[in-house]
Amino acid sequence: MSTTQTTQIEIIKAATTKINDVDFGNLSFGSVFTDHLFECDFKNGEWQQPVIKPYAPFLLDPSTRVFHYGQAIFEGMKAYKNEADEIWLFRPDENFNRFNKSAVRMAMPEVPEELFMSGLRQLLQLDEAWIKKGKGNAMYIRPFMIANGTGVIANPSDDYKFMIILSPVTSYYAGDVKVLIAEHYSRAANGGIGAAKAAGNYGAQFYPTTLANKQGFQQVIWTDDATHTKLEEAGTMNVFFRINNTLLTAPVSERILDGVTRKTLIELAKSEGINVEVRSVLVDELVAAAKDGTLQEIFGAGTAAVVSPISGFSYKDEYFELPKLESTVANQLKEKLTNIQNKLEEDTFGWTVKI
Amino acid sequence: MSTTQTTQIEIIKAATTKINDVDFGNLSFGSVFTDHLFECDFKNGEWQQPVIKPYAPFLLDPSTRVFHYGQAIFEGMKAYKNEADEIWLFRPDENFNRFNKSAVRMAMPEVPEELFMSGLRQLLQLDEAWIKKGKGNAMYIRPFMIANGTGVIANPSDDYKFMIILSPVTSYYAGDVKVLIAEHYSRAANGGIGAAKAAGNYGAQFYPTTLANKQGFQQVIWTDDATHTKLEEAGTMNVFFRINNTLLTAPVSERILDGVTRKTLIELAKSEGINVEVRSVLVDELVAAAKDGTLQEIFGAGTAAVVSPISGFSYKDEYFELPKLESTVANQLKEKLTNIQNKLEEDTFGWTVKI
Repeated sequence: MSTTQTTQIEIIKAATTKINDVDFGNLSFGSVFTDHLFECDFKNGEWQQPVIKPYAPFLLDPSTRVFHYGQAIFEGMKAYKNEADEIWLFRPDENFNRFNKSAVRMAMPEVPEELFMSGLRQLLQLDEAWIKKGKGNAMYIRPFMIANGTGVIANPSDDYKFMIILSPVTSYYAGDVKVLIAEHYSRAANGGIGAAKAAGNYGAQFYPTTLANKQGFQQVIWTDDATHTKLEEAGTMNVFFRINNTLLTAPVSERILDGVTRKTLIELAKSEGINVEVRSVLVDELVAAAKDGTLQEIFGAGTAAVVSPISGFSYKDEYFELPKLESTVANQLKEKLTNIQNKLEEDTFGWTVKI
Repeated sequence: MSTTQTTQIEIIKAATTKINDVDFGNLSFGSVFTDHLFECDFKNGEWQQPVIKPYAPFLLDPSTRVFHYGQAIFEGMKAYKNEADEIWLFRPDENFNRFNKSAVRMAMPEVPEELFMSGLRQLLQLDEAWIKKGKGNAMYIRPFMIANGTGVIANPSDDYKFMIILSPVTSYYAGDVKVLIAEHYSRAANGGIGAAKAAGNYGAQFYPTTLANKQGFQQVIWTDDATHTKLEEAGTMNVFFRINNTLLTAPVSERILDGVTRKTLIELAKSEGINVEVRSVLVDELVAAAKDGTLQEIFGAGTAAVVSPISGFSYKDEYFELPKLESTVANQLKEKLTNIQNKLEEDTFGWTVKI
């Protein structure tokens, strides 16, 4: 390892690279990581020396707060390499801002913008050989923060660790996605942490999702916990419904994550002349539309899968198959979005940021 | 270190003890740990070789699931040493059963009873010098499980780590506890994980609790998230209200933890001839009772603080001071319970278990 200093970030380079061991044509999502990571600790009320160093396990005490009280947040972003070998980020300010909103809700320290962005930029530059060109290829970026103070007492930690890790990914076909509409289990409470990208929101969904899996459904569409009448979001995606040529999606709230892909698709759809309504969508409305034939599409929207078409849904033991359309808004928006992200089409929105 | 084999648990003893560095008269709750810990990993669908070994930090990959998706559960128990140097547990079956209920809800593997209990027993025996005699002294026991599989994909982990760590504690006076009744923030959703002792339930409370702290309140009493009209539980405690000589506490539900101290106090109160009602307690009812003078006591019940009397509460910016009574049910029940736990009084309930 050699140590060099670049602006304020200490850079410790890996002695060797793992890149030649990786089959880039056959990547399993989120399972392969690049040679380096970015790390900055928060101690004594302030952020310490940031460092980029070889990706490696690290030591934690058994009483570390994140194990016991779940103070942990994350983000999901992607970087793309175009034919000119330039590296581009997509709306990184949105992820940065949401990360700090999550931090506040989880009583964790906010990360300074310069620390977040220069850490991200320098890490991507150092591991740029891992970012492959071509539509579908991307570098999945996972900024996250954990409470790494010690002691089994249910109070906010004094110490935190902020890290960025990078995982090369390819586009994937999620297969035939059938969803179950939640009738009993819930994702979030009013006045809870549903709008934060907090670790605990995800683990809480695993059990009801495995129950749905056993019934042949890949995902659950969550409903409001008080009445189970309003459609909210899916596991790691916001959800869109196309009924009678109008695209519908729930407004963000304390219970619903303010998804970057969600807000991007809303803007894109409007620019494409598609009628969009952001409002509560009722389960009854969806069932009625499925019955009278006005329900055209359902799709999920998120950073990992981009746009994920849904082929059918079940509610109260009744299964509704969606029509198989020649041309879908899901595909139209996905094509437009991925072209902008991959710099194959002009970005008139100012969403893409070169690093 | 010397290695010996006892039944199925491998025991690796610490070369030296830290016990002489500990000031047992001045312990900060949950911050000092004994020489050893119990550990068992779950891999390839089964529990691996359990081991008792020196308490020490351990290595985790940055993509470990617990950091990203919050699959983590715990329990809180206590062991007591009586004047005859016997070590006693209090209702350990209750903690064991709840641990596995939490595991199911978080899509984690259940721990076999023999593994949990023999690990706990042998660990306590090995570190028995750390358990001090005398009322108020106890060994706080923290069994916990984390998802230690790797990969940033929001699915249940394949691998898990179950550990038991021990922290000597003394009784503590929580000071003058004033509480704020939640009007906006919530602890749990219907159909959520509120009844599980999941890590994410605790971190989620930190921010609203720090807001309450800034207003001079030590704890929040949570209300139901749909209507904020029903009193549910406090941070790490269930809550009891004494109105007109009747002791009231909310029934356990999907939103409310089935507290061991809570159920014990209900049984103890009944045996002492106190009128107890387990039913929803409304905020309006509490405010009315405070106004007409029939509200006598509020207290929290949990393993850490045992019984924690509350001196006043605030609701909608109005503060209600509780009467300062000569003799309280809180003290009566606490005295009775701690006498049973410390084997100073006969346990006619069969709650105490000798190890």
